[in-house]
Amino acid sequence: MSPQLLVTAAILVIGDEILSGRTKDKNIGHIAEHLTRMGIEVREVRVVPDVEAEIVAGLDALRHRYDYVLTTGGIGPTHDDITADSVAKALGVAIDEDPRAIALLLERIKPEDLNTARRRMARIPHGAELIQNPISKAPGFMIGNVIVMAGVPNIMQAMLDDVTPRLRTGTPLTIETVEALGLPEGAYAAALAGVAAARPETSIGSYPSYRDGIFHNQIVVRGRDPAAVATVKAEILAALATIPGARVAQA
Amino acid sequence: MSPQLLVTAAILVIGDEILSGRTKDKNIGHIAEHLTRMGIEVREVRVVPDVEAEIVAGLDALRHRYDYVLTTGGIGPTHDDITADSVAKALGVAIDEDPRAIALLLERIKPEDLNTARRRMARIPHGAELIQNPISKAPGFMIGNVIVMAGVPNIMQAMLDDVTPRLRTGTPLTIETVEALGLPEGAYAAALAGVAAARPETSIGSYPSYRDGIFHNQIVVRGRDPAAVATVKAEILAALATIPGARVAQA
Repeated sequence: MSPQLLVTAAILVIGDEILSGRTKDKNIGHIAEHLTRMGIEVREVRVVPDVEAEIVAGLDALRHRYDYVLTTGGIGPTHDDITADSVAKALGVAIDEDPRAIALLLERIKPEDLNTARRRMARIPHGAELIQNPISKAPGFMIGNVIVMAGVPNIMQAMLDDVTPRLRTGTPLTIETVEALGLPEGAYAAALAGVAAARPETSIGSYPSYRDGIFHNQIVVRGRDPAAVATVKAEILAALATIPGARVAQA
Repeated sequence: MSPQLLVTAAILVIGDEILSGRTKDKNIGHIAEHLTRMGIEVREVRVVPDVEAEIVAGLDALRHRYDYVLTTGGIGPTHDDITADSVAKALGVAIDEDPRAIALLLERIKPEDLNTARRRMARIPHGAELIQNPISKAPGFMIGNVIVMAGVPNIMQAMLDDVTPRLRTGTPLTIETVEALGLPEGAYAAALAGVAAARPETSIGSYPSYRDGIFHNQIVVRGRDPAAVATVKAEILAALATIPGARVAQA
């Protein structure tokens, strides 16, 4: 078994519009799936309002605990876009208009239209590396282990792709799914619990659904050691074989 | 102006499958919209894994700070469903099989099929009130200011409807939207910032989009005093009228 490397992350979503339900977040799921594929484990998500003290508190709670913190939202030109200044405050660094960011804005905005509000989008904490925004140019940035991205999903996704090569990756999770048909979750839960208790090096999740008159259960085994995941999958199949009425479709 | 009542809430989403991106959360947006309509302000959201210490820490951080904490996920019959026991631990109360919950399960499950795993779904902390689940019977519960609901969206929604009459409501937010067409956010951001700085009793959000070759900006004014929101809306309209190229469509 090769040595396993664990890299962790948290997501900090910034925006009143998510908390009011006006905007439905689409970024958490995308980032989580993207990082999981890279072998980076998302351990926590927080959503906070456009309030400096809340953003700073969220950053401080997360950046010391996880390898990376990825933020979304609050980097536009309006008065409620306070993420960059909040990050600078949390990290105790200065923040100013960044000539590299101004140059990017000028690729899209005429010099005479680069007003005070738009210049806010060029405020970048000292020491940060920019993250490219191929869609509307105003960049995100990475400073220390904090990655600051836009809230608009297609811009966020492009920024995530741009920053991806700069991130350390861990041992990817091996994920195996067993689909158990025809019986409710409660019929096999005890068997599953037995396997799970004996195999703490993997995690086993059970995700039931009921459609077309049939119980469908996805039993998902995750772990960083492929051999252990394969063993646990075999044990689950063996356990299911002892339960009357269980049918198995391997995904 | 009538006295205004502020009632706050936080949402605690529990589940490895959200953090891995396997399942895309649909509950945060629904709960946020539902509570906002009731005049309950959602101030924070956290997503934590199926780990007791993390659930307890999340509950403790949120339940002392906000009027309500609503949790989703982790109340099924399998070994990774540890929400009820974690809530009991956080609140320092005992937990046992609840005869009321057993009776509900027996409405759907034959007595001979009510095995150990399924009986887990009847584990309810002492002193909790049940929340009805018309879909699959296994109940949620409310204890103190903590409201525990399922993770499956249609069940969660039914539980939220059941618990709603038990919640204190605040003064509902008055929300007015101004749609500014034909110019990018940066063209009016300074004007908006001026209004926002002078009117701290309302919050003003700006949500730009670009479609069909036209900039669409939704400028949203929120506040608990309808007169103040109307005043701020009028000030925003007046400010936009001074900006060349701005067209306004009132929503």
